[in-house]
Amino acid sequence: MPRKSERSDKWSSRETYGLVDGDGRVATRDDITFATGVPIPRDVAEFLFGGWYDKVRQREIPYNSHASDYELLAPLPSPGKIVCLTFNYTDHAREQGLDAPEDPVLFIKPRTALTGTGAEIRCPDFVKQLDYEVELAVVVGSREGGDRCKNVSVEEAPEYVFGYMILNDVSARDIQFQDKQFTRGKGFDDFAPCGPWITTADEIADPHGLRLATRVNGESRQDSSTGMMLLKIPQIISKLSRVMSLEPGDIISTGTPAGVALKNPGTPYLEDGDAIDMEIEGLGSIHNTVRKVPS
Amino acid sequence: MPRKSERSDKWSSRETYGLVDGDGRVATRDDITFATGVPIPRDVAEFLFGGWYDKVRQREIPYNSHASDYELLAPLPSPGKIVCLTFNYTDHAREQGLDAPEDPVLFIKPRTALTGTGAEIRCPDFVKQLDYEVELAVVVGSREGGDRCKNVSVEEAPEYVFGYMILNDVSARDIQFQDKQFTRGKGFDDFAPCGPWITTADEIADPHGLRLATRVNGESRQDSSTGMMLLKIPQIISKLSRVMSLEPGDIISTGTPAGVALKNPGTPYLEDGDAIDMEIEGLGSIHNTVRKVPS
Repeated sequence: MPRKSERSDKWSSRETYGLVDGDGRVATRDDITFATGVPIPRDVAEFLFGGWYDKVRQREIPYNSHASDYELLAPLPSPGKIVCLTFNYTDHAREQGLDAPEDPVLFIKPRTALTGTGAEIRCPDFVKQLDYEVELAVVVGSREGGDRCKNVSVEEAPEYVFGYMILNDVSARDIQFQDKQFTRGKGFDDFAPCGPWITTADEIADPHGLRLATRVNGESRQDSSTGMMLLKIPQIISKLSRVMSLEPGDIISTGTPAGVALKNPGTPYLEDGDAIDMEIEGLGSIHNTVRKVPS
Repeated sequence: MPRKSERSDKWSSRETYGLVDGDGRVATRDDITFATGVPIPRDVAEFLFGGWYDKVRQREIPYNSHASDYELLAPLPSPGKIVCLTFNYTDHAREQGLDAPEDPVLFIKPRTALTGTGAEIRCPDFVKQLDYEVELAVVVGSREGGDRCKNVSVEEAPEYVFGYMILNDVSARDIQFQDKQFTRGKGFDDFAPCGPWITTADEIADPHGLRLATRVNGESRQDSSTGMMLLKIPQIISKLSRVMSLEPGDIISTGTPAGVALKNPGTPYLEDGDAIDMEIEGLGSIHNTVRKVPS
């Protein structure tokens, strides 16, 4: 998150990371290092999962600035993988005329799709059916003792949740259904706005009791609850871990509820200039604008 | 690649990287640092794409050991993405009864699927239809001047090829077709054996004139030429770059020719203990053994 200069409205170009408290106050990496005497690493994933976060958390954290002073980038720029579930909400699966599968049907977004709140979703103009999907994204952490997240039980699974954030699974429906495989239509640069930050697991009493909603140009489009998920987070992690090892920093996006343009005749697809607001209770909100760009 | 101890048949556990010459002789990171006086970084991607490789290449390289002294791991452990093409060979597309699409149909493998030559493919025993796919994998590099690989032309595309290697796109057909999305069935740990090393682009005069072949327990199963690709490498890179930015270290696997078990009745799927040998002309060969493991 480059810091806004205090003397002007221009952004300085330096990227850094920091901690945000419940009031939106920010302690930057520099501030943390200075106040605690701990020279924390430059890489945010190393900070979070290499033991540094646990170390500084026990000290006095200097919240010297505010989130509104920054441009917020994707909280994790280089996750090992971004695994996304399809058809994981009762209402959305019903919209699609599908029964819920026993195993999650997956696709993977490339990390080059990540962007932060406030950013434009730059979409090539050959995409004709651009759609939104609000999703609760789980950020994988490590378990005390450092065991690899592989073949874990439903009971053990919550220990591997580091935190949560909002993820907009932006989708080019025309390409998704032309290809049948979803990867290309959901894999464009900027097609995974996320954030606004990672809310640590201890802040969320029940991840299945959260309202999640999308507005486009102020109009309500999605409004549901994470309680409507078919596979719950512990089941998702357990089932995924029987396929692929989950590593700290991996992102798992847990599917979207009803209300996407695809399945609601009369609801228009996204156009140049459209403003998308997504919120999930307890996690904050993200705001993005669609920008159609020449291809 | 952990180094085999010289005093015994045991492997030492240290992972490092090195350069391999045309005779299979190896210069390790330590040897290179010692001989050139350049303290090259610990991370192989940083070495290759951060300017270090170009720097040491101009010096005398000390090839002090041999590839057979090492266990060869996946050449790049943490690529940003592994993008795979489906149905990109004339003969394989015909096997499947499909016309070639104008745009490549994609899926992404997670980096946790990577493994090296010599390794076991540990496959959960609930997978019933395990199949092989020999593929030419392109390793993306950076272009002189450092331009991002985004919206590049077919003419510019070859400048972004760092090198090539073999990749076995191991596939659980039962899961792939149950899900319809290919990601889960092709995303298990160990389902992307690759290597044996990266052959740099300058060593390969024509990447579309290479024989590629698979043998299972010594029996020929695939035997074709990279000249049978429908979309050629420059087209693939150009088309992909109109969807997603390609970053140095990204792996693009370019599809498989005819001969997979799926489309050849009478050809058995892979079973516990099966030995798979794959070779591509000029790139070497990889050898892996199937190990069915309790789930």
